[in-house]
Amino acid sequence: MRVLDLARRRKTVRKFRPERPPMEDLLKALKAAKEAPSGMNAQPWKFVVVDDEWLKGRIRELCEAEERKFHSKTKGDLMAWLQSEGFRPEKPFLSEAPYLVLVFGHTKAPYWLQSTWIAVGYLLLALEELGLGTVTYTPPNPKPVENLLNVPPQYKLQTILPIGYPADPAPKRGRRRLGEVVSFNGF
Amino acid sequence: MRVLDLARRRKTVRKFRPERPPMEDLLKALKAAKEAPSGMNAQPWKFVVVDDEWLKGRIRELCEAEERKFHSKTKGDLMAWLQSEGFRPEKPFLSEAPYLVLVFGHTKAPYWLQSTWIAVGYLLLALEELGLGTVTYTPPNPKPVENLLNVPPQYKLQTILPIGYPADPAPKRGRRRLGEVVSFNGF
Repeated sequence: MRVLDLARRRKTVRKFRPERPPMEDLLKALKAAKEAPSGMNAQPWKFVVVDDEWLKGRIRELCEAEERKFHSKTKGDLMAWLQSEGFRPEKPFLSEAPYLVLVFGHTKAPYWLQSTWIAVGYLLLALEELGLGTVTYTPPNPKPVENLLNVPPQYKLQTILPIGYPADPAPKRGRRRLGEVVSFNGF
Repeated sequence: MRVLDLARRRKTVRKFRPERPPMEDLLKALKAAKEAPSGMNAQPWKFVVVDDEWLKGRIRELCEAEERKFHSKTKGDLMAWLQSEGFRPEKPFLSEAPYLVLVFGHTKAPYWLQSTWIAVGYLLLALEELGLGTVTYTPPNPKPVENLLNVPPQYKLQTILPIGYPADPAPKRGRRRLGEVVSFNGF
């Protein structure tokens, strides 16, 4: 079963080979994403493809500034986890990946957030099938990037996907067994 | 490209043939869903499979009661759209579909809503590949169903997916062209 194979194979990728994949492949994946269902069929998503080096660098700078603020004020479980995982405010993948895809949602549409993330799910599987890696990176505060791109106020940045050929040796993180997340005729 | 084909082919299904698909197929689709990425790899999802006739009927009753409240107070664009689309408070698919899958999200996990809906995206494509139809139905107020199932307070019902072999003649609703939802190096 193809979807199951792709879902199992797919892992988060934060390091990329420098070669730029064909834009055509990226657009194929976005064609799949835009077929997702949405509340009132409003299709509340907008995808901004960034391959301009200056713009990628600027997005990285803005995100890292917000990450530094976030890291300086985060405590407890989340910080412990971030540290144990080696997370740092630096996000080199934002300038190293050949492409960024910024996903926005139109906040006035019904179920806009849910619909937009279904589309992200479609996109992740499509990218995997094309041999492209990514991570669903979410900046702690999306405002500076929204301002940089003059995004209309009704749209909110949902995630920034750095996209390219994978070069990340980190293995896929384990998932719970089916019996731990599925039950029958009761919670 | 398989994912693109499935994404294009998939349409919302609200009417089902009475035959019950193999539980094995449903579980295959859920195996794909649980492979989705999630914030902190928290895997904040829980899937409740319902094939008990009494329980499906009770879920339908509770949802329809909430739908009647919702319809009696909804006005404006959304109501006009609901009426033009023939939406009614009756949701026969909740008892007619051979299966319901109730998807819950653990609200204490980081990015739980986003992660859960990526998993729903995976699930929709997996179901399509297996020839199974569904609709991402969201009750206007999930509380009564949560109470019925004694759901722990940290979990929230995200959607109820009625699942079975499609018998819905409604065509797929159109999607915008790629150029309307994608832009390059700017919003």
